[in-house]
Amino acid sequence: MIIAMPLSAETFAPYGDVIAAVKDPDFYINAGKCGRFHDLANTDFGTGKAGISLAHGTPYALPLSLTMIERHPLGSQMFMPLNDAPFLVVVSDGPEATPRAFITDGTQGVNYHKGTWHGVLTPLNAPQPFLIVDRIGEGNNLEEHFFKTPFQVNIPNA
Amino acid sequence: MIIAMPLSAETFAPYGDVIAAVKDPDFYINAGKCGRFHDLANTDFGTGKAGISLAHGTPYALPLSLTMIERHPLGSQMFMPLNDAPFLVVVSDGPEATPRAFITDGTQGVNYHKGTWHGVLTPLNAPQPFLIVDRIGEGNNLEEHFFKTPFQVNIPNA
Repeated sequence: MIIAMPLSAETFAPYGDVIAAVKDPDFYINAGKCGRFHDLANTDFGTGKAGISLAHGTPYALPLSLTMIERHPLGSQMFMPLNDAPFLVVVSDGPEATPRAFITDGTQGVNYHKGTWHGVLTPLNAPQPFLIVDRIGEGNNLEEHFFKTPFQVNIPNA
Repeated sequence: MIIAMPLSAETFAPYGDVIAAVKDPDFYINAGKCGRFHDLANTDFGTGKAGISLAHGTPYALPLSLTMIERHPLGSQMFMPLNDAPFLVVVSDGPEATPRAFITDGTQGVNYHKGTWHGVLTPLNAPQPFLIVDRIGEGNNLEEHFFKTPFQVNIPNA
């Protein structure tokens, strides 16, 4: 059984970036009217282009039965929620490792670094819209690994 | 006086892309659990990288006194609201033209094409968080034009 932990930049660093406004803005633009939290993600789109897409995800039943993970060898992939609902983030050090699970705080998005094994987009309780920034281009950018036995992922208080 | 019109992909096309989920998803991913609205923006980051940032914008008083417009000659720039509040979008065919104003429907974001003259990020009524995808890199990527006489921008029903 895997227990989801609160997502933080420090614990997530080996896998990607947390997209969130923490501390003060890096600087202000527009004559001081707008605080900018600058350059939050290690993006890498390789030979493709940085594409902008939307996703409408369907919620998963809890506790989650984690049946597979996937990775994108050719580019990074960012998911930013367009509402304030937490969602589940699963990453792994590899197909044979035990995955790690994180729960966002409702303001956080994630940018998976190129090649990071991760679970699919996992809204909870209700459908959820996301903005995606990922690589669009030629080549096979998807590897999937299906577990022989699914992992159960529990979210405390969910 | 400029009157803001509802934002639509068709009227905005000369200036950029409307980031919104209209019609059905282009395709489904994650074993059908997630609808993807694919490749919604004409992104161009030139010699820079596609950077991901956040912005917290302060609202402007209405009717808006539009004092200036700006453009980024080296890259496209996308703003996606992270809540469901409409915001004001101003674009122009050039420094000497009369700007055009649009009001979003609360689900829409915009991607200004490279070099498009536009107004600054303009939340209404309350502070608003946005995700930004724009060019990060060397070079002067900002041109500003200040009007001799500000334009008044009215938003019907706002």
